[in-house]
Amino acid sequence: MTVTLRDVRDAAERIEGVAHRTPVIRSRTLDGLVGARVHLKAENLQRIGAFKIRGAYNAIVQLPPDQLARGIVTYSSGNHAQAVALSARELGSTAVIVMPADTPPSKLDAVRGYGAEIVTYDRYSGDREAIGRQLAEERGLALIPPYDHPHVIAGQGTAALELLEDAGELDAIVVPVGGGGLIAGSAVAAKGLQPGIRVIGVEPRAGDDTKRSLAAGERVRIDVPRTIADGQAAPIPGELTFALNRTLVDEIVLVSDDELREAMRFAVDRLKLVLEPSGASGLAALLFGRLDPVPARIGVIISGGNVGAARLAELIGTPPGSDM
Amino acid sequence: MTVTLRDVRDAAERIEGVAHRTPVIRSRTLDGLVGARVHLKAENLQRIGAFKIRGAYNAIVQLPPDQLARGIVTYSSGNHAQAVALSARELGSTAVIVMPADTPPSKLDAVRGYGAEIVTYDRYSGDREAIGRQLAEERGLALIPPYDHPHVIAGQGTAALELLEDAGELDAIVVPVGGGGLIAGSAVAAKGLQPGIRVIGVEPRAGDDTKRSLAAGERVRIDVPRTIADGQAAPIPGELTFALNRTLVDEIVLVSDDELREAMRFAVDRLKLVLEPSGASGLAALLFGRLDPVPARIGVIISGGNVGAARLAELIGTPPGSDM
Repeated sequence: MTVTLRDVRDAAERIEGVAHRTPVIRSRTLDGLVGARVHLKAENLQRIGAFKIRGAYNAIVQLPPDQLARGIVTYSSGNHAQAVALSARELGSTAVIVMPADTPPSKLDAVRGYGAEIVTYDRYSGDREAIGRQLAEERGLALIPPYDHPHVIAGQGTAALELLEDAGELDAIVVPVGGGGLIAGSAVAAKGLQPGIRVIGVEPRAGDDTKRSLAAGERVRIDVPRTIADGQAAPIPGELTFALNRTLVDEIVLVSDDELREAMRFAVDRLKLVLEPSGASGLAALLFGRLDPVPARIGVIISGGNVGAARLAELIGTPPGSDM
Repeated sequence: MTVTLRDVRDAAERIEGVAHRTPVIRSRTLDGLVGARVHLKAENLQRIGAFKIRGAYNAIVQLPPDQLARGIVTYSSGNHAQAVALSARELGSTAVIVMPADTPPSKLDAVRGYGAEIVTYDRYSGDREAIGRQLAEERGLALIPPYDHPHVIAGQGTAALELLEDAGELDAIVVPVGGGGLIAGSAVAAKGLQPGIRVIGVEPRAGDDTKRSLAAGERVRIDVPRTIADGQAAPIPGELTFALNRTLVDEIVLVSDDELREAMRFAVDRLKLVLEPSGASGLAALLFGRLDPVPARIGVIISGGNVGAARLAELIGTPPGSDM
């Protein structure tokens, strides 16, 4: 079971008219600071505010009609929850989302707003994957996990596909890494289209499970990361994502929470874009010199912007150096 | 002296490769709230963070070589200052910008960063237009005012030209009004391309000089407006802009500072875009039901995003109802 450029191209056709073709944004200020031509794929401007709609929709639209009639289940406290809920609704299906009981009410409301049912569990004692599997079995639901699924990965790859179509030849793409679905799909697309391109992943310093796993040659589990980049807080890479990433990813670089905040502040001040912490990780890697040598033409996937006005004000209002 | 669709088209050719062709952004959430198809022309993503580069560059690039060698002068505390400074630099010329002595240091630095010379004056006792004219005369500089100039107006009109090219047929465009240059150029472009389109201006409640002037049939001067929308604080419409707008603008609607803040918050939360208060005025008009009846297909020019992270946090952190 693998994912090919053809799968990504097929996914692109399936999501057309459902996901936005997000703009690729350029900034001469950023180019000057980085010393390169930088192309930002603005998935914060995507539907539901993040790239996740690409993979979720590509997986759900391929389910047979009787499965759509029975429904879908997933586990996610973040953007994948909204992506599944919205995709299910768009396809006339129903979704059950397994979410931690202490999920912020705004996120629960967003998911309910798309008509999904929420099943809560205790974050510290519960096993969300087991609950998801049990619900799938009991109710005959299709389980669409957040990243470890070939159709999800192929869907996420359409972000890089569009980026390369719009930006032309690039020397490297820089992609946030959580469970590894976005970078796996993006690497398939990028190396399929431009075999010489470098694929560079970015993890928060506290959540370097993929970097460690690539170094070890096998999946390494770390403590649940404490980082403001909640979209990148996976403690272990996915099985399928890791199998792809160990072949296709050239390098993983790390950024601190302070650097993420600084990149978010830069995005507001200079790019006029709202990025969630995970969404700012590629930008942070560029701004803080993690790419050495600096490739001449760089594509960066800005993965999402779901941070909320109050939380944004809190994060960018915090002066640098006060990181816990 | 007037401005025609042909002038706007010529301006579009002149600014190509200098100004960004900014994206037109769609949001189904916004569509649902407004009850219309809304197309947002995101000039906050423009170079210098606002549409002003369009008009400034279109005016300066038409100056003869010997004038470019002598230089340019303008008066502006806002986005036009940066637009002139940057355009002058791009064309190998020099700019003198007349700015109030109490302009925030960040804005002075931005203008100096583009290599311009700053001449300060006292906001309460000085006459910036007189100082600008005097400098023009003494030093042989070309005066490029912020809005009352046919080449500036034609340049600003390219924002609407691109919007209509990308969005297709629209029933109305909604445009922020300060001195009236953006809406004048946009109205020329929009009514030239689609004669049946409605052109609706938006002013801050405290700065309704154009609304009053259109009602009176002549330019009316009001007290210097106190509003967070500093880009729309003109006390009287321009001569040329008013001459165009009294023919081409169908209606002016008003929004309060609280409504501007709410629209800025909505933009952060749901659109992931940073808008300055003036840039949010069209969105505020839509969100607060100022268009009645609601046109089915609406284009909105988001004029700019120059607000700065700290000021943004301050503005969107303020709870509604606490307006001074």
